[in-house]
Amino acid sequence: MELSKIYRPIQQDLDKVKENLRSIIKVDFPWLSEQLGHVVKSGGKGIRPALTLLAGKFYNYNLKYLLPMAGAVELMHTATLVHDDAIDKSVVRRGQPTIYKLWGEEPAVLLGDYLFAKAGEFVSDTQSPRVIKLFSQTLATISSGELNQFLTAYQVEQTREQYFQRISSKTASLFSLATESGAILSQAPEEQVKALKDYGYNLGIAFQIVDDILDFTGTEEKLGKPIGSDLAQGTLTLPAMLLLERHPEDNPIKKWFAERADQKNIDLAIKLIRDSSIIDECYRVAAEYCTRACQNLSSLPENASRQALIDLADYVIKRKK
Amino acid sequence: MELSKIYRPIQQDLDKVKENLRSIIKVDFPWLSEQLGHVVKSGGKGIRPALTLLAGKFYNYNLKYLLPMAGAVELMHTATLVHDDAIDKSVVRRGQPTIYKLWGEEPAVLLGDYLFAKAGEFVSDTQSPRVIKLFSQTLATISSGELNQFLTAYQVEQTREQYFQRISSKTASLFSLATESGAILSQAPEEQVKALKDYGYNLGIAFQIVDDILDFTGTEEKLGKPIGSDLAQGTLTLPAMLLLERHPEDNPIKKWFAERADQKNIDLAIKLIRDSSIIDECYRVAAEYCTRACQNLSSLPENASRQALIDLADYVIKRKK
Repeated sequence: MELSKIYRPIQQDLDKVKENLRSIIKVDFPWLSEQLGHVVKSGGKGIRPALTLLAGKFYNYNLKYLLPMAGAVELMHTATLVHDDAIDKSVVRRGQPTIYKLWGEEPAVLLGDYLFAKAGEFVSDTQSPRVIKLFSQTLATISSGELNQFLTAYQVEQTREQYFQRISSKTASLFSLATESGAILSQAPEEQVKALKDYGYNLGIAFQIVDDILDFTGTEEKLGKPIGSDLAQGTLTLPAMLLLERHPEDNPIKKWFAERADQKNIDLAIKLIRDSSIIDECYRVAAEYCTRACQNLSSLPENASRQALIDLADYVIKRKK
Repeated sequence: MELSKIYRPIQQDLDKVKENLRSIIKVDFPWLSEQLGHVVKSGGKGIRPALTLLAGKFYNYNLKYLLPMAGAVELMHTATLVHDDAIDKSVVRRGQPTIYKLWGEEPAVLLGDYLFAKAGEFVSDTQSPRVIKLFSQTLATISSGELNQFLTAYQVEQTREQYFQRISSKTASLFSLATESGAILSQAPEEQVKALKDYGYNLGIAFQIVDDILDFTGTEEKLGKPIGSDLAQGTLTLPAMLLLERHPEDNPIKKWFAERADQKNIDLAIKLIRDSSIIDECYRVAAEYCTRACQNLSSLPENASRQALIDLADYVIKRKK
C-alpha cells in the first residue's frame, strides 16, 4: 500500500506539520533561510511525524499539542541527518547534495545545532514536562548511539546484541518517542501509552533492518544515495554480520575493514550477500519485529488509525526506498 | 574581588550543581564516561550557573528547580564549547587539550549533541514550559550567531552593529537566559524578571568584550589558550575593528585576512593594539555595559545576592583570565 493511502486519516494534519516546518525558514538571516529551505524542502517520507499523529488518534486528538510534537520529531530527525552527513562526509541524500557537500562541515554542525534548538522550541509548545524530558532523553540516546557506531567503525568482531543496541539507539528510540509522545499528549491511559511506545520501538527496529538490507539490494536511483554506503563507512549491519558468520575466512568485508583500500571488496561483499539467502533471513528478522509491532496494537480501540499503523508495518517491510 | 568571595551566598549550591554535572559521567558506556569526565572536570569559572542561583535569591529560592536550571546553562555552555573547538580546530582550552584534539572532530560533534541532550533533560526538570522554551530559543540564537561568525570570517568590512549582534547572540543570550530563568523559577514579579534578564544581557556583552580584549592583552598561561586566536580564526572583534578604523591603509589585519599566510601580521596587529589607546577604549565600552547592568539591579530588593551581582560586574571588567 502507498504511504499516501496509509496516511489518509491524518494527511491534512501532516500537511500542517510540513507547513509549520516551512515557517521556520522565515528567519531574519537570508543565508540561514537558504540553508533551512534546502533542508526542509528535500523532506523525506514523514513517517515519524505521521506516527505521532496516528498515535494521537485513539483518545483526545488535540492538535494544539500534537502538531508541534510531530514537527519536533521530524526536526530532530533532520538535525541528526545533517550532523550524520557531516560526520560521514556524505555528499548526497534523498537524491540531493547534502548540507555538508553544499556548505561544508562547520556550517553543517552549526545548522544541525540550530535545528535541534528549533525542535526544542516545538516540543516546549506541548507544555508537557514529561514529553519534553522524553524528547531530551531520546536525543541523548541517539547521539550516544551514533558515537558508539563511530567508535566501533571498521571492527569485524561485533555481536548481534551490539547491532541491536545500536539500531535501537539510533532509530527505534525516535520511532518510539514519536508514538509514545502522541499517546501521552492525547491523554491515552498508561497501558495504551506503553502499547504505542512498544509498537514504535518494534517498527523502528524493523525499519532500520530494512534500511540496512536496502543498502545492499537497492538501487542508487531509488535510495537517492550510493549502494554499500554502510560498508564504505565501516558500519557493520545485519547482512554484513551474517556474511561474516557464514564465511569467517577469506571474507571481503574483513579485507575492506582491515585495509580500506580496494573498492572491489565492497562490490564482492554486495554480490555475495545478494546471491545468498542472507537477504531472506534479514527480512525474516525484520518481519518478526513488524509482527510484534502489530501485536502491540491489539489492546487499542479499533479505528482507521489502528489500521493505518498495521498497514505501515506492512509498508516498512515492502518498501524499496 | 575573587570569585570565591562573590559566590559566597550560593557557593554550597554551586557545588551541588557541579556534583550533578559529575553525575552525568556515570553512564553505561565506559568510553563515553571517559570523554564526559574530561569535559566536566576541566570546568570553567561557573559564572553562568552562579548567575542562575544568584538571580533566584530574591524571591522563592527553590533549589528543586534552580539546581537543574543552573546545571542546564552550564551544560549548554560546555556543549557549545565542544562544538566550537571542533569547528575552529582548537587544540587547547582552559590549559587542557580539547575533545577535538583528544578524540577528533566527529566524536566532538556527537559528544556536543549528547551534552545538548543532557542539558535538555536538566531543563525539563524545571517543569516550566516558559523556561524550557527560552532555553531552546537561546540555543537557536547561539547557533545562528556562531553560524553568522563562521560565515563572516576573514571579512574586514564589518560594522560595529554586526559585532554587537554577534556577541549578543553568542554570549549575552546565554547570560540573560541564566538570570532570567533564575528569576522566573523563583517566581519573581515580571518587572524583576525583566530587570534580571537585562542585567544578564549587559553583563554578557561586557564579558565578551573583555574576552576579546584579553585575546590581545592576556598571556597564554593565564588564558589557557594561545593569544591572538580570534584573528587566527578570522574573527573580527572590537579591538581589531578599532585598529582597522585607525589604520585603514597598510593594516596587518587586512593582510592577514586576505592571505592567511604570514603569522607576523597577527603579531604586528597584537603589538599595534597593545601599544595604542584601543585597549582603554574597549575597556570603556565594556565598563559602560557593566554600569548599565548594575543600574538594572536598582529595583531589586537589597540583599547579599544583589551585592554579589554588583561585585560580579566589577570582576568581569578586572579579570585577567
